[in-house]
Amino acid sequence: MTLLEPTTVAPSTVVPSYVKDAWWSPAEGAKTQSVLDASTGAEVAKVSADGLDLAAVVEHGRTVGQASLGKLTFHQRALLLKQLAQYLGGVKEELYELSASTGATKRDSMVDIDGGIGVLFTLSSKGRREMPNSQVYVDGDVEALSRDGSFSGQHIYTRIPGVACQINAFNFPVWGMLEKFAPAFIAGVPSIVKPATPTGYLTEAIVRHMLASGILPAGSLQFVSGSARDLIDHLDYRDLVGFTGSASTARALKSHPNIVHGGVRFTSETDSLNAAILGPDAVAGTPEFDAYVASVVTEMTSKAGQKCTSIRRVIVPAGMRDDIVAAVTERVGKRVSIGDPRTEGVTMGPLASMDQRGEVLSSAARLVDGGGRIVMGSLDAPDGTDPAGAFVGPLLLAFDDAESAAVHEIEAFGPVASIIEYDNLDHAVALAALGGGSLVATVATHDPEVARALVLGIAAHHGRVLMLDRDDARSSTGHGSPVPHLVHGGPGRAGGSEELGGIRSVLHHMQRTAIQGSPDMLTAITGEWHTGAMVRTGIHPFRKSLAELRVGDQVASGLRTVTLDDITAFAESTGDKFYAHTDEEAAAANPFFPGIVAHGYLLLSWAAGLFVDAAPGPVLANSGLERLRFVTPVAAGDSIRVTLTAKRITPRETEEYGEVRWDAVLHNQNDEVVATYDVLTLVAKV
Amino acid sequence: MTLLEPTTVAPSTVVPSYVKDAWWSPAEGAKTQSVLDASTGAEVAKVSADGLDLAAVVEHGRTVGQASLGKLTFHQRALLLKQLAQYLGGVKEELYELSASTGATKRDSMVDIDGGIGVLFTLSSKGRREMPNSQVYVDGDVEALSRDGSFSGQHIYTRIPGVACQINAFNFPVWGMLEKFAPAFIAGVPSIVKPATPTGYLTEAIVRHMLASGILPAGSLQFVSGSARDLIDHLDYRDLVGFTGSASTARALKSHPNIVHGGVRFTSETDSLNAAILGPDAVAGTPEFDAYVASVVTEMTSKAGQKCTSIRRVIVPAGMRDDIVAAVTERVGKRVSIGDPRTEGVTMGPLASMDQRGEVLSSAARLVDGGGRIVMGSLDAPDGTDPAGAFVGPLLLAFDDAESAAVHEIEAFGPVASIIEYDNLDHAVALAALGGGSLVATVATHDPEVARALVLGIAAHHGRVLMLDRDDARSSTGHGSPVPHLVHGGPGRAGGSEELGGIRSVLHHMQRTAIQGSPDMLTAITGEWHTGAMVRTGIHPFRKSLAELRVGDQVASGLRTVTLDDITAFAESTGDKFYAHTDEEAAAANPFFPGIVAHGYLLLSWAAGLFVDAAPGPVLANSGLERLRFVTPVAAGDSIRVTLTAKRITPRETEEYGEVRWDAVLHNQNDEVVATYDVLTLVAKV
Repeated sequence: MTLLEPTTVAPSTVVPSYVKDAWWSPAEGAKTQSVLDASTGAEVAKVSADGLDLAAVVEHGRTVGQASLGKLTFHQRALLLKQLAQYLGGVKEELYELSASTGATKRDSMVDIDGGIGVLFTLSSKGRREMPNSQVYVDGDVEALSRDGSFSGQHIYTRIPGVACQINAFNFPVWGMLEKFAPAFIAGVPSIVKPATPTGYLTEAIVRHMLASGILPAGSLQFVSGSARDLIDHLDYRDLVGFTGSASTARALKSHPNIVHGGVRFTSETDSLNAAILGPDAVAGTPEFDAYVASVVTEMTSKAGQKCTSIRRVIVPAGMRDDIVAAVTERVGKRVSIGDPRTEGVTMGPLASMDQRGEVLSSAARLVDGGGRIVMGSLDAPDGTDPAGAFVGPLLLAFDDAESAAVHEIEAFGPVASIIEYDNLDHAVALAALGGGSLVATVATHDPEVARALVLGIAAHHGRVLMLDRDDARSSTGHGSPVPHLVHGGPGRAGGSEELGGIRSVLHHMQRTAIQGSPDMLTAITGEWHTGAMVRTGIHPFRKSLAELRVGDQVASGLRTVTLDDITAFAESTGDKFYAHTDEEAAAANPFFPGIVAHGYLLLSWAAGLFVDAAPGPVLANSGLERLRFVTPVAAGDSIRVTLTAKRITPRETEEYGEVRWDAVLHNQNDEVVATYDVLTLVAKV
Repeated sequence: MTLLEPTTVAPSTVVPSYVKDAWWSPAEGAKTQSVLDASTGAEVAKVSADGLDLAAVVEHGRTVGQASLGKLTFHQRALLLKQLAQYLGGVKEELYELSASTGATKRDSMVDIDGGIGVLFTLSSKGRREMPNSQVYVDGDVEALSRDGSFSGQHIYTRIPGVACQINAFNFPVWGMLEKFAPAFIAGVPSIVKPATPTGYLTEAIVRHMLASGILPAGSLQFVSGSARDLIDHLDYRDLVGFTGSASTARALKSHPNIVHGGVRFTSETDSLNAAILGPDAVAGTPEFDAYVASVVTEMTSKAGQKCTSIRRVIVPAGMRDDIVAAVTERVGKRVSIGDPRTEGVTMGPLASMDQRGEVLSSAARLVDGGGRIVMGSLDAPDGTDPAGAFVGPLLLAFDDAESAAVHEIEAFGPVASIIEYDNLDHAVALAALGGGSLVATVATHDPEVARALVLGIAAHHGRVLMLDRDDARSSTGHGSPVPHLVHGGPGRAGGSEELGGIRSVLHHMQRTAIQGSPDMLTAITGEWHTGAMVRTGIHPFRKSLAELRVGDQVASGLRTVTLDDITAFAESTGDKFYAHTDEEAAAANPFFPGIVAHGYLLLSWAAGLFVDAAPGPVLANSGLERLRFVTPVAAGDSIRVTLTAKRITPRETEEYGEVRWDAVLHNQNDEVVATYDVLTLVAKV
């Protein structure tokens, strides 16, 4: 096997690691762990990181990785992710094949593989749309801290100066890796990927392709296959650990001295007992009832229920339990066929390993001990499945005592859910909260009042809440699917942190710092012009391409007087005859106006006339406007002047132009501020 | 002593607690701790929480406190804080007197007491300006998750459903309490305040006034005087602990099982070895040099150096050490007079206690052992001070080895700093980073390039960086002063979390949740109209006061055709003769336009003409505009129509009107979107 070629690992080969920009395998005779096919029990690979120098791995990220990523802007990194996503789209068929060994059906594999590639596309796009094309992210508005404007504050984000160690779970070997890698990459933070042993061979396969693409800068991605128990020993406050997995492992990691004392940033996303609440209006026969049943069945069976977001607690109004059990049972009977996912017609595969099967069956037994009655399925292996495979059939348990501790505490990480009943909406909220913090809940109702009571009642216990009704049942992305646009994570048992959420995930890899100083200094640090900072006049800034334009380039107009005739004519031509512009007496009675005043839009329009340079040039279009505030009314006889200053320049990596944001201020003849706003334009690069 | 009256504690009285909306004192014979006057050693108070049922305290906050605060909106809570600040402004003289017992000079007391009241004013104002007048904070834009608009996502924040336990440090008994209490209060989260024993009697005094004001809702504030060792035993993932104090205590708390396993939210702000870096340009004789020296002296002597933000590491260019030492020594000699702060002319008081004095002297001795040479001051008690008082004079140590571990690790929490030299800017950055994460650094330079290199180099190791130069030396709020507008906290040794930062501090008391659903459901939850949600037409919405107006109220216009004459006339009257509006050939050569197109401001102005209802009515003024994007150009012959929908309604608590944000969409005759924006208006309440 050639380690430099993008090829899948041959059976019984030790899955290599990729560290310090080279593939690494343990020495012959190293202690290895065997990984088996989930359906057949055949050996797929061996795993070992015996002898790997993790301190050197961390150091490589902190030095080489930080340096190579530090040469790029947010947009440049985001664009590389898009190219990577395109590249991976071309190799995914090969990955599906390997994915089947993990027990995943084709549909499961698409969630993992296509879903992971989708995260790259979305975060790439959001990174370029919502972040500046630089290395400093400006957060919020400038804060005035002195009366004379000589001292202000501004929050910025800069990347953390270490590595992001990503400890992933076995259930999504591709998506789980990419959803952590992508935001770190855009932030400019090198990743050290540690997959879970049972499915890490699939992660290795995609890492191999990512590296073969030639797109990734040196040191930006390292991959450790096998135990990395002492990884955290080498980390400090500059670094971040992003963990997904069991609550018990999270606990062990969180107690590490480097996390408790050393300031290592630690985020964890752990399994939770996610609820699906059926609204009282969603009785049998309603579209909400049907959508709810479909969602419960999907969440029990997709990935064989091995999703941290799966529905574990089916919470329905008193008296509706039998209807739901019957409908779920019917749908499972019609739709679910269990077996080796490589077999035609199979819709649900085995669990990832025999160990997992053992855990799930033991948890299910504990649920029974805790008062659960099996109302669908059984603990026996499904008919016709290979005894060497990790097969478990869908299992639904009913609890008469809705407060039973077992329902809210025991998670069987497989195709297992429990059903309980609530008495009223407050009770439903209380039951959902007994989960002690969850990743996601579904609320199925078409009644806005019910939705409001349930969703606002449970929101603070959840990272995500999906509202299911007839309007979105078809278009919904589903209870169990985190989307890259929205945060993934939840409080308490769910681990207490956040992933994804668009560029929020990028910012989680950066440090927020308040900087204080004079306008010139704030401008120097942020790259954005701050009011009061140095300006350059002379050549009209509309005559400068992006290559020439600098923040602080300014044009200031002379005064132009507004007459009553101007206001009247504007009212006539636009049709805006609001009384403040047309009726002296009524206008004077208004609490804000001295009498007839000019239209705000007249002022904007005139301002454009005052600052524009009319001839063709690099400024291509006015694309928008932001933050407009009218401060002082302009009466007939008053005059206005405008000052326009280049504030933020954002070249587009893939276009011949970029966006320039201009700071616009209108003053009157008494130098009072009339209006402030930002003008957005598109300007050619050359 | 009557416990219900706002009066200071008589000497040798046990400082009471305030729990479950009543004052509480330990039973006679309870074990108490004695607290002494910092200057004289006389007993000021006794402290004990012996026998207090902390589980009941937590439960009271979670039930009564959550319920009473839950009846109010963000604005209503914020307004109560303003009223509270006004009330406290009237009693502060009395607090200064008590504050002197802690060793604080009048100036120190003002930082603590006036500074604390200032936090209330600022957060009150920001809460009302930057948050909605409701109980749900909408975070970021709606995220489209389906092609047909029937399924979208929106992030919201709702308050955490528990209590905020605030464990404060001894050095700012008033400010430290108020800066944690205020954001919790605006969020709607009840506070349990636990002051530090040595100065908790001053916290008790202000708590007493806060309660006497009658402004605080039941259960919103509880106060525990004395040890509260088992407080965290009673907390879970619904609650938050905000700690300020030593790194060792933070560590002990952070290891508590309820934090490691139980999901209690824990934030800590601990001391750090804050740096002040002098730029190479800031040589003797420059304003930056003088400002730097003044800042070092201020930070060494204010609060007798007992500030977690004090400058501990004076980092100067090679060769400039002697100049700085001489200048600091001279300024200390001229400005600093140590003694009982109640004595006329005293500018620096004692440390807070003899224990602190012992700690500082022992840390200073360790600094000497670690290679430090005393270049100013001595370890002896300052001349003429009372031996029963905790007096320590300003002490400056020089280290020849800039990398010496002692400089970067040993913090003497008093008027003690160390000076080291750097070789070049990279070296200065590396030295600052050796602090292992700090709250704040000062960078003194007037060179923007130097500022950029230093500030961007150290930003990720800091929560705040102050840039000091001639432009802001007079107006700066100072290195050591956190301001409520900006975040306070830092990574690593500084504790790793954030306080203040305007409404960021409020959001830290809330859970972010992604909600997904149809536009109607998103509207129901957020209270803000989402595109695609139900609308109401009929009565023109400009005819409705805030009492009648509802989100979703809409007016839709007919089409109006734009002619070339209209465009030409607009160009003439406004003066905006940009070629895209006046020159067919040049316009057609532009990559975005088919030929001459209407001005964007013409479209906005006409849209106003199309949606406005002209007669006097509840809509008082157009106050601004946001988020304008021009999507499709409008050529001569095209027509436009506008749809205006009430999107967000924000009544002002203290005005007769409120703000209404309208969603505006312009379409052309082909139903293509021409422009989208938000119109801001002021609308009368009745």
